[in-house]
Amino acid sequence: MRESLPGNLLIAQSGGPTAVINSSVSGVVAEAKRHSQIQGIYGAVNGILGVLNEELVDLRQEDPITIEKLRRTPSAALGSSRYKLNENDYARVMEVLKAHKISYLVFAGGNDSMDTAHQVAGLASEKGYDLNVMGIPKTIDNDLLGTDHCPGYGSVARFNSIAVRDAGLDNDAIYTSDSVKIVETMGRDSGWVVASTALGKSGEDSAPHLIYLPERPFVRSKFLDDVKAVHDRLKRAVVCVCEGLKDEKGEFVKASAKQIDMDRFGHAQLGGVGDYLVNLISSNLGIKARCDRPGTIQRVSITCVSEIDLDEAYLVGQVAISKAVEGESDKMVALLRKSSDPYKCETGLVGLSEVALKTRKVPDESIDKNSNYVTDAFLTYARPLIGGPLPEYASLRRRMVEKLLPDHSQR
Amino acid sequence: MRESLPGNLLIAQSGGPTAVINSSVSGVVAEAKRHSQIQGIYGAVNGILGVLNEELVDLRQEDPITIEKLRRTPSAALGSSRYKLNENDYARVMEVLKAHKISYLVFAGGNDSMDTAHQVAGLASEKGYDLNVMGIPKTIDNDLLGTDHCPGYGSVARFNSIAVRDAGLDNDAIYTSDSVKIVETMGRDSGWVVASTALGKSGEDSAPHLIYLPERPFVRSKFLDDVKAVHDRLKRAVVCVCEGLKDEKGEFVKASAKQIDMDRFGHAQLGGVGDYLVNLISSNLGIKARCDRPGTIQRVSITCVSEIDLDEAYLVGQVAISKAVEGESDKMVALLRKSSDPYKCETGLVGLSEVALKTRKVPDESIDKNSNYVTDAFLTYARPLIGGPLPEYASLRRRMVEKLLPDHSQR
Repeated sequence: MRESLPGNLLIAQSGGPTAVINSSVSGVVAEAKRHSQIQGIYGAVNGILGVLNEELVDLRQEDPITIEKLRRTPSAALGSSRYKLNENDYARVMEVLKAHKISYLVFAGGNDSMDTAHQVAGLASEKGYDLNVMGIPKTIDNDLLGTDHCPGYGSVARFNSIAVRDAGLDNDAIYTSDSVKIVETMGRDSGWVVASTALGKSGEDSAPHLIYLPERPFVRSKFLDDVKAVHDRLKRAVVCVCEGLKDEKGEFVKASAKQIDMDRFGHAQLGGVGDYLVNLISSNLGIKARCDRPGTIQRVSITCVSEIDLDEAYLVGQVAISKAVEGESDKMVALLRKSSDPYKCETGLVGLSEVALKTRKVPDESIDKNSNYVTDAFLTYARPLIGGPLPEYASLRRRMVEKLLPDHSQR
Repeated sequence: MRESLPGNLLIAQSGGPTAVINSSVSGVVAEAKRHSQIQGIYGAVNGILGVLNEELVDLRQEDPITIEKLRRTPSAALGSSRYKLNENDYARVMEVLKAHKISYLVFAGGNDSMDTAHQVAGLASEKGYDLNVMGIPKTIDNDLLGTDHCPGYGSVARFNSIAVRDAGLDNDAIYTSDSVKIVETMGRDSGWVVASTALGKSGEDSAPHLIYLPERPFVRSKFLDDVKAVHDRLKRAVVCVCEGLKDEKGEFVKASAKQIDMDRFGHAQLGGVGDYLVNLISSNLGIKARCDRPGTIQRVSITCVSEIDLDEAYLVGQVAISKAVEGESDKMVALLRKSSDPYKCETGLVGLSEVALKTRKVPDESIDKNSNYVTDAFLTYARPLIGGPLPEYASLRRRMVEKLLPDHSQR
């Protein structure tokens, strides 16, 4: 514990942008200004690359109104990167930190960034350089260990809850004899994001009808049976899948290089899992299908932001600084849930080594035994994170006018 | 002019859902309740199919709160359809209208629906059946003649303005050596929707950088030159395309049946224009690209609804009824712009025959001479329709901290 270490603070944003990572930076800067031992408040341009390239911005020069507005500005205002440090890079990082008298280093990122932070903390300790390193959890993937959930997740979950409910209403509205809609969400290694679409379900027969998580191997024949069963019953289906689905052989469920005309395209990225499944359904079941894929839009949407998520992102930024100033280092700020209803959550600290490079999957009790939906346990867990109820919609009672003519079926 | 015609009213929703078509129904019902000559207020289930099948709901039985809430409920609450009437169907339609003593028939829809409405009006007149038929413009495609714009458009334009601005921020944030993002919007025959993405541009170098409309033939070599030029300058690009782009031969710009492994897929829907262009860029320019395709989500998003659009949708619903009661028939309610700044718009009427089956393209003066962007004339036209400024974001000044070490380039 190195209390009251005087020096400069450096904050870096890392990995994919979210709707609320700037809220964390806002919390970091606001809290840092309260501590006299923190002199310069610097931001690294494009994450760790900004450290390597000595590209640092002076956040004390920003208008306080700008810092406040960062709370509701999506994406990563300092720029981010996915650069992975090599051996030589670490020496350079130490050189830059020393040159700029950095005593406090804060990374907002996922499990890769927590590893980088952990390595830097270890190296500083080894070299006898006084440096307090803190991690701020940030990932829409919600896959960090040691924390109940990750800032960024509640907002992507809210976006997808609303998007899938709306896609379901849209699918219900147009009468066609067959209609399957696939919604493809983000999520490479874990199913937290695709699972959140269940929060948009407003009734037994409403969307989503099926959800597939990468925690379970994707079985094509089973999938077709599932879709057919829903379609037989409702004449429609909304099916949610994430981009990281893999089959029993561990291969991604999507068009592979072999399946694409290479002479013309040269690359094998045409379509993702959603488009692949559209074709699987139409060719095997003869049912018309289409795929919505909001892509990066889902992770940076302020119009669908979760207010809980926004506030927690700010809070973990503040706590990272207050704890660093108290002398903590090599730790990540964690969110520790006390209760789900009413929702209560506190902050704590977890060692970076416990988080680095590890992935938290959706647990078995959150996945339906049929591997095609989530359980109530998941809903109880995720519901508070999206920050209040979804926009309320009207639903017609549809009292039918008495028929006066002989039957005349026409569909 | 058949003033004060007593009888029942029937409203039908038609074609693709929008964020505001239920607002029009809300306006219709609210206005209808004010006129004593209107007795029953009925809604057709799934548009014209509900008429054919005699599936009508009694909208007077709905709670007034439900009718009010319809104003902010996306999709089509009565259900819609794209069914095209044949010769025999028209006789059946007349039979159902007569049986239920319908004196007022209102269709909310696009140019196909306006044709249906026109045909029914003509048939009723021919048979001497007293029926006032009114059209309510509704299409995100914004392609109806006789009206300045169409309810539904302002909201899809707002969604796409925000989505593309956000996608641009996301693309700017992560430093990678190459980064092109394609955003694929709706729009089969006209470029109104894809053009609206320009309303999200916040600075000279910000997204979107290129916009391609179906009003111009898509030339692959020109497209690649355009993308390369932006990428050479900015190291990134956000490119907006709509699903209906066609090349010089008049063929859709997308993977055709021949290019897909038919043995495996059987169908040729794999990927759309966006995925096709991702591959075109990567194979020809060696630049990494990806595609976001919000799909149907863009047209039913209440979180991005335009308040102007919502109000105008309600208004045209009201006017359809007040004019029908005055004796007007075979007309569509039109929005007539009086000025763009400040925005002023009034309602008027246009003959259904002038609207039926016709498509209004984006005019030449709204398309950049290089065929890869829109002009200020378009921005002036479209800006008021999205209902006020987009959410305000912070932008850092990024005052750089002085470098203290020898240069060490690392990207």
